Amino acid sequence: MKRLMMIAVAAIALTAAAQQEIRRGTAQAAGPRVEKDGRVTFTLAAPTATAVTMQLDGSADLTLSRSGDVWTVTTPKALSPDVYRYLYVVDGVPVLDPSNVHTMRDVSTVKNLLIIDTPQRDLPLAVHDVPHGTVSAVWYNSPTLGRQRRMMVYTPAGYDSGRTRYPVLYLLHGSGGDETAWLEQGFVAQMLDNLIATGKVSPMIVVMPNGHTDTDAAPGADGRGLVAPSFDHKQWMEGSFEQSFGDIMAYVESHYRTRALKRGRAIAGLSMGGLHSLYISANRPADFGYVGLFSAAVMPRGGNTATVYQDLDGKLKALARQRPSLYWIGIGKDDFLYKENIGLREQLDNAKVRYTYVESDGGHEWRNWRAYLLQLLPLLFK
Amino acid sequence: MKRLMMIAVAAIALTAAAQQEIRRGTAQAAGPRVEKDGRVTFTLAAPTATAVTMQLDGSADLTLSRSGDVWTVTTPKALSPDVYRYLYVVDGVPVLDPSNVHTMRDVSTVKNLLIIDTPQRDLPLAVHDVPHGTVSAVWYNSPTLGRQRRMMVYTPAGYDSGRTRYPVLYLLHGSGGDETAWLEQGFVAQMLDNLIATGKVSPMIVVMPNGHTDTDAAPGADGRGLVAPSFDHKQWMEGSFEQSFGDIMAYVESHYRTRALKRGRAIAGLSMGGLHSLYISANRPADFGYVGLFSAAVMPRGGNTATVYQDLDGKLKALARQRPSLYWIGIGKDDFLYKENIGLREQLDNAKVRYTYVESDGGHEWRNWRAYLLQLLPLLFK
Repeated sequence: MKRLMMIAVAAIALTAAAQQEIRRGTAQAAGPRVEKDGRVTFTLAAPTATAVTMQLDGSADLTLSRSGDVWTVTTPKALSPDVYRYLYVVDGVPVLDPSNVHTMRDVSTVKNLLIIDTPQRDLPLAVHDVPHGTVSAVWYNSPTLGRQRRMMVYTPAGYDSGRTRYPVLYLLHGSGGDETAWLEQGFVAQMLDNLIATGKVSPMIVVMPNGHTDTDAAPGADGRGLVAPSFDHKQWMEGSFEQSFGDIMAYVESHYRTRALKRGRAIAGLSMGGLHSLYISANRPADFGYVGLFSAAVMPRGGNTATVYQDLDGKLKALARQRPSLYWIGIGKDDFLYKENIGLREQLDNAKVRYTYVESDGGHEWRNWRAYLLQLLPLLFK
Repeated sequence: MKRLMMIAVAAIALTAAAQQEIRRGTAQAAGPRVEKDGRVTFTLAAPTATAVTMQLDGSADLTLSRSGDVWTVTTPKALSPDVYRYLYVVDGVPVLDPSNVHTMRDVSTVKNLLIIDTPQRDLPLAVHDVPHGTVSAVWYNSPTLGRQRRMMVYTPAGYDSGRTRYPVLYLLHGSGGDETAWLEQGFVAQMLDNLIATGKVSPMIVVMPNGHTDTDAAPGADGRGLVAPSFDHKQWMEGSFEQSFGDIMAYVESHYRTRALKRGRAIAGLSMGGLHSLYISANRPADFGYVGLFSAAVMPRGGNTATVYQDLDGKLKALARQRPSLYWIGIGKDDFLYKENIGLREQLDNAKVRYTYVESDGGHEWRNWRAYLLQLLPLLFK
């Protein structure tokens, strides 16, 4: 009852929203309510709606039932500890939860965020009371592209107060993403904070550049204005990101206290970022001690013949001679790039590149990419 | 027609949303369409709705008209260059624009963001192609509070590549805000980037701490989990933020290249942050050359008698003797704190603190606070 009243109050306040928007209320968990049995109850005020459903990660669409002005549904089963996205659909209109300000964007789809932690409160994707690293939005100069571009940089707790040098993981997003994707959908800062705090992962710098060279930064963060995020880019897997990657390394190694040698550098990415990681490491066989390919694209767009894409077999043989400490591949059984990855493994076998291969359930999805990163991180810089 | 089809496609894609959520489309401006005459057309697909209205900053609520499955409205007048928030209300349910991923949160209310730039594209609140500073989420240690807490730090373009020392503006949020408020609602990074680029404002570091000492960081960014933002805090204008402010200064001055002297320090804040700025500067009369109070609260909560709040008159006299370069007050004629500010001015007059007083239209609102900051910034560190 308390909850229903809260929602009614919120609805009234919304209608009466003045410029000041000063509303008072006691602090409370945002949005859905976790029941004692671990099931989760979702509630939405929609007085005149005729049908309310919701999308919830990992579930079939749920149908909400009316109770007065309010619609509600409880999940049939407890939700296991993880991050979830959900979105209401009210009479065909997608509706974000007005009682939950926490959202997550995947390309152009925004949904609400729900985090179910473990009973021990040690879900690596949640914020816990451990030392936190610094996350910065940094503009670097790319002489190759002739522009300033933005990247996100995670430096571990202690970096700002010490003199230690750290290894660097370059972590690359997919074709629908940007420099914010691994932070906002991948929960990278939370993972690193938590796993470094428990000693499972080596303290490291994580550099997350923007892989679309026709943009300077994420939608809204560069001079294009409030554009819509999109998969389509003028320049897309045509070599310019790989060709200009040295600019990023040069900036990072001249502006941060890094271990600027092979065993202090890792590169990993998902989908398009997997393609980038594949070709950047193949073109710079002496530069990376660790390579991670998550649901990697293997073929450049339209059979592009940029120099960086030529003679992959020969480049992989050169890489094999450098004996990287780890070459790690993760792919889901249902991923639409599964077959491309079979071909890649054959190429790696032929070139005698030793690799670790992890085949998971599921497809081309963040749940897998987070899981792959959680598996990869403890293996880096050991 | 092209636009309507786009919306229809989006609706279908939403219904069919698979785990992969791979949708392709050409890049486009997100959300509303600006007409040639400067009026703005808003469009929402809502096939079975019976009434769709919208809230838009600076306008009375607008009523949308149905055209098939789509509802639309064009503003009666051109929108002048500024930032705007809007929110649909579909049959009583608040609905964010599914075609616009750009949003702004004000305490617990999330609305869509729309930016109308000038014809010359020099709105100081928009991102332009100028050198950009770095924005970092930094965790500092507060020995006084015994905890790590988060603050946002803007360092100007060039900071990371030079050896120059910079002045520091400490910029404080209101009681409904947190360390992200001045960035997300105040557009501080955009303002600084643009105004530094044109030489109107001195390059400076801007430090935006979290003024609620019962929290470590913004909702979602600390160990409390995905809590709802709220005005209510256990500790609120009771002195602990002011008492622990030296921890923030000590961290900043030992971790950044600052001009750690009076003429290199400014402090400004809105509402509760104005109260913080008032008392911190009064308790540290030799520390700040510049003070800015925006719609400032003047009285601590419940007549709190913490040491920092005692003998304000005497402390202001001590401040007057230090002759700060600028003591700047901005308040709207309709602000609910207008009378408190009349009283404050009398206190300042009695203490012989010279101040600049700006009285604007409007009330307790971000439009004023952005305008005050735009007026204050060029006056700092000159």
